Amino acid sequence: MNRSIGSPLDRSISPGGASDFLQLDAGDAPRGGLSDWLARRIRSAIADGRLAVGSRLPATRTLAADLRVSRGVVTEAYRRLTEDGHVAGRGRGGTVVVAVPHAPIRPSPLPGRDGGASPEGLFTTPPDLGVFDAIRSAPARIDLSPGLPDLAAFPRAAWLRAERSVLAGLSPADFGYGDPRGTPALRRAVAHWLSRNRGIPADPDDVMIVNGTAQALRMLVDVLRADGITDVAVEEPGSLGVRQHLRPLGTPPVPVDAHGIRVDALRATGAPAVLLTPAHQFPTGVVLGGERRRELMDWARDGGLVIEDDYDAEHRYDRPAVPALRALLPEHVCYAGSVSKLLAPALRLGWLLAPPAYRDALVDAKRLIDLGSPALPQLVLAHLMESGDLERHLRLIRRHHRRRRDAMIGAIREHLPGAVVHGAAAGLHLMITFGTEARGGPYGVLPDAELATAALAHGVKVHPLSWHTQRPQPPGLVLGYAATGTAEIAEGVGVVGRLVRGEGPSV
Amino acid sequence: MNRSIGSPLDRSISPGGASDFLQLDAGDAPRGGLSDWLARRIRSAIADGRLAVGSRLPATRTLAADLRVSRGVVTEAYRRLTEDGHVAGRGRGGTVVVAVPHAPIRPSPLPGRDGGASPEGLFTTPPDLGVFDAIRSAPARIDLSPGLPDLAAFPRAAWLRAERSVLAGLSPADFGYGDPRGTPALRRAVAHWLSRNRGIPADPDDVMIVNGTAQALRMLVDVLRADGITDVAVEEPGSLGVRQHLRPLGTPPVPVDAHGIRVDALRATGAPAVLLTPAHQFPTGVVLGGERRRELMDWARDGGLVIEDDYDAEHRYDRPAVPALRALLPEHVCYAGSVSKLLAPALRLGWLLAPPAYRDALVDAKRLIDLGSPALPQLVLAHLMESGDLERHLRLIRRHHRRRRDAMIGAIREHLPGAVVHGAAAGLHLMITFGTEARGGPYGVLPDAELATAALAHGVKVHPLSWHTQRPQPPGLVLGYAATGTAEIAEGVGVVGRLVRGEGPSV
Repeated sequence: MNRSIGSPLDRSISPGGASDFLQLDAGDAPRGGLSDWLARRIRSAIADGRLAVGSRLPATRTLAADLRVSRGVVTEAYRRLTEDGHVAGRGRGGTVVVAVPHAPIRPSPLPGRDGGASPEGLFTTPPDLGVFDAIRSAPARIDLSPGLPDLAAFPRAAWLRAERSVLAGLSPADFGYGDPRGTPALRRAVAHWLSRNRGIPADPDDVMIVNGTAQALRMLVDVLRADGITDVAVEEPGSLGVRQHLRPLGTPPVPVDAHGIRVDALRATGAPAVLLTPAHQFPTGVVLGGERRRELMDWARDGGLVIEDDYDAEHRYDRPAVPALRALLPEHVCYAGSVSKLLAPALRLGWLLAPPAYRDALVDAKRLIDLGSPALPQLVLAHLMESGDLERHLRLIRRHHRRRRDAMIGAIREHLPGAVVHGAAAGLHLMITFGTEARGGPYGVLPDAELATAALAHGVKVHPLSWHTQRPQPPGLVLGYAATGTAEIAEGVGVVGRLVRGEGPSV
Repeated sequence: MNRSIGSPLDRSISPGGASDFLQLDAGDAPRGGLSDWLARRIRSAIADGRLAVGSRLPATRTLAADLRVSRGVVTEAYRRLTEDGHVAGRGRGGTVVVAVPHAPIRPSPLPGRDGGASPEGLFTTPPDLGVFDAIRSAPARIDLSPGLPDLAAFPRAAWLRAERSVLAGLSPADFGYGDPRGTPALRRAVAHWLSRNRGIPADPDDVMIVNGTAQALRMLVDVLRADGITDVAVEEPGSLGVRQHLRPLGTPPVPVDAHGIRVDALRATGAPAVLLTPAHQFPTGVVLGGERRRELMDWARDGGLVIEDDYDAEHRYDRPAVPALRALLPEHVCYAGSVSKLLAPALRLGWLLAPPAYRDALVDAKRLIDLGSPALPQLVLAHLMESGDLERHLRLIRRHHRRRRDAMIGAIREHLPGAVVHGAAAGLHLMITFGTEARGGPYGVLPDAELATAALAHGVKVHPLSWHTQRPQPPGLVLGYAATGTAEIAEGVGVVGRLVRGEGPSV
């Protein structure tokens, strides 16, 4: 860059290089960075209000003369400000301030939890709707929260390839408002996927595309409430997030034992509907047994509605696939699935297969919520499903997940020998409960909320089992392994082990 | 393709070419299409249940021998079925049926409107939630429905370029669950955009990303109801779709005159909130005048909540930009905008800037609805906004829109000389009302619902003004021009003109 006034000597013999405009003095600029300096000074003048939006910057020739710098210096500074979106060239109107610059992106506090995402009280106060955002934004070295697949393996190249192909094939009308139930291509691809991978005979007309299981639950809540339903029974233990999304419906808890939900206890609640995770119960990992399935189907035939959250059915390691309840009794089972655990939660894409009686009302619910899901990601996903790319991806991450699961089991054996491991044959997480040899707490161990708090304070995120229970239960932890490398898994479980033994984590 | 048994003579001297498997007889196949025929027969056997999912197909060698065709014929048929996703090779397990084939995609009937999307009664029965899907899927040569920009100009190349750049820059955590308010990059880009293009000083923390204005309204309905609000006043005439999305709130109508909404009449309703389209009133195109703005701001300072639907503010032709109400009184104005009219409704992306008092509750509402909008399209949009690509696109489509608007005005002058044109200085549509020289109807003209019905029967989609009114109003039409070529615009308006004059459309 050409600098007209170069040396200290020049400045000493001249009072020049200064301008009325913002009282700029080019003598303040660091060597060789005049444009940078000028852009920075203007930017901060915009930020603190000295230069208002709409005000015009001096002409480059004028400012360059005032500052005794080359005109190229000023032009370059204006170019950078224009690129940033802070100023804009207006032809004969000159260069005008158009936007106030903002501080660099910072994790701004989220509402909920007393207005901030501070980890204080995260596990020891009753969890509110913001609790998952709070744990997500809490700083930690190692994240063993459950619910994520291997995100580093996201098939970026295949996604981009599919997107190119989709964009090339669209008609103008495809960019307009679409069928609120989803694009025909994805509804067909999902029907194929569910036939192929989950044994569910599905017609595309049975499939509604939604923005993830959370949205499916929200739509069901709207429809069930309008139908006079006030309670949906849930598994105990069972997902905190699911219970939150069923609000304002009541969620009577029904115990889960080694064979899954106790259908006799479900009957006893009198609830007209139940939400289940039959393929891999959350958080215990139990598979709903054959006898229980039959009992449940009898309950459904008597008028009960089953909501099947098939959240991680595609992830299994040491056992055969578990058929979906939807395949047995489609008229009584509302089936929800998503790509959150197949690809990425950030896609916010899922599907809902409803009993015929609820279909029209669910389409209206979807219309009111957003008029339909975004079309492009739907079409890209359809492409990945039909091309085999998604199955290839699933095989790849299954290998990663299995290795990470094995690493976690090994680390638990080493660092938490008194812990009992549950649900390891499938899924993306383990549940552990503690034997009585551990210290303190009502069940002979540290209360799990305190354990999770201590772990977070030492840089490790875990879910206390008590988050996922409505009634007092023996303490435990829910540990995700799928999104974390094996070394971090070992380190994280090591920290938990030392905390359980009452040792400092650095020991 | 090699066909082992070729001629009628071969068959006549041999009972062969038949198989136990599905009672196939290669003699039934058309000449030269053996693989096709075989694949089709197997497909239909899967469809009608003769071949169940899980059942194994005969080995290629065996079936070829039975049918007396070359093995290549069978291999090719199996390959096609595999590509379709109906069968899958299982190594030593052979080739297995994995999915029931579906009928080719057909426009399946949407719920609502008596279960079908038939145009019967579309305009003459009270419009339900499915009415826009019904008109969208009704067959027609020319679509003059309002609300769409030029969709053929969607910047596919820029979108794909931005997507490539976004995918390359993401960290694994970006594929996980995100901030329910939207990605920081898009919230910042929207803040810049609104500062630059709408004169709204906005901080990224003020911005929530939503799936279009429809979702913003739905979130507001949830939050306002929880706040005890039961009514939101709306403009009269005013958007039918907006009124539908405010359900179950009451929507007392407030008359719009040449200066916009009558604030005295708004006060008289006693409603604590009002939804407005101040920059280009829908459907009249009126701009909210300066005096009315002052009255409205007084009303808001007295405790009223203004919901500003800035639905097409970026599209103007013959007039200066109209400042947003949000820029004047951010504590009392909830501002909603979207890319539906800048880029494409299929993206389902928009933004909501709420008064501080409602912010936390709106974040909770968004969490319950879908936990946040999909991340990838948000990041691509942010890229387009910050790179200047979106502004370039806007300049391009503005030129197209202006040309189409002029074509529509010309066609109206020619074919509908008695019609009064409203709101032509901006937007994506015109409103026309009829003078008294036209025939029939309570206002001296054909009732507009009948006119729209007749137009649709003759292949032209228009909105009757009566859709967008709650009280009896003089008849009119709302005509979109932005998404339609000039020749079709002229033809469509010509059809309407002949119908108004009582002539057959082919005259």
